[in-house]
Amino acid sequence: MVKVMASGTFDLLHMGHIYYLRESRKLGDSLTVVVACDETVRKLKHEPVTPEKMRLNLIKELKMVDEAVLGKSGDRYKIVEEIKPDIIALGFDQIHDEKKILSELKIRNINAKIVRLPKCDDMNDLDGTRRIMAKIISAYEFQKEMESIEKS
Amino acid sequence: MVKVMASGTFDLLHMGHIYYLRESRKLGDSLTVVVACDETVRKLKHEPVTPEKMRLNLIKELKMVDEAVLGKSGDRYKIVEEIKPDIIALGFDQIHDEKKILSELKIRNINAKIVRLPKCDDMNDLDGTRRIMAKIISAYEFQKEMESIEKS
Repeated sequence: MVKVMASGTFDLLHMGHIYYLRESRKLGDSLTVVVACDETVRKLKHEPVTPEKMRLNLIKELKMVDEAVLGKSGDRYKIVEEIKPDIIALGFDQIHDEKKILSELKIRNINAKIVRLPKCDDMNDLDGTRRIMAKIISAYEFQKEMESIEKS
Repeated sequence: MVKVMASGTFDLLHMGHIYYLRESRKLGDSLTVVVACDETVRKLKHEPVTPEKMRLNLIKELKMVDEAVLGKSGDRYKIVEEIKPDIIALGFDQIHDEKKILSELKIRNINAKIVRLPKCDDMNDLDGTRRIMAKIISAYEFQKEMESIEKS
């Protein structure tokens, strides 16, 4: 029984997320997903669009996900200690230093293998949270411009 | 074997969609979801944020979904003829005239029951595509304002 762990923010679900989770699941027999809590997202990225409860509940509904839990703020390895994964899957674009993770795992006596997944070739332009946001903003700007032209 | 059909745009997945699909699935033994094609969305609502292929592929990954197909533009009942559902589930906020649907089904000799699902009490503020878009736009406007204050 090989337990795989994947993690991420998963704000505005897209096919990049699906690809990452599907490939992660293939590495073992079960997939546990850690969904970053709002506090962590704020610290490492930006204000999340959708709140942690919503991001967690959506991930739980995906076919390839056996279990999903909310990450912890502060010591991010605490949740790894609880999950006890055999494999930690990293997405191709996730900024994680693999050597640093391995040394942190060693300190905690966690014997997990780290697998960095390759990039999917068949990605769409909108398979990125920031790209979805950019499309919404650009449509909004366009609409505003049209309205100002109509008024003038 | 009771076959349920649900349908929608499913642009930017949220818990309102999950609730609708979960409740639809409970009405029978299998759930087929019709995802509106871009042409139909443009005609009935607005320009979709995410394209039909992406919306369809995300819906296919949900646990409660047995099958998902793209809707047809033009005669929207053609797909119902192909699916042959026993039950057509409508979301509480979907603007569909049930009497009209029943008479259209009768013309086509489709003997499906229509079930209008109730509203879920436990909805989040962001369980709506337009509400997610509004949040992204408002964060963008706020950021622009902050930048203009910093510059002045």
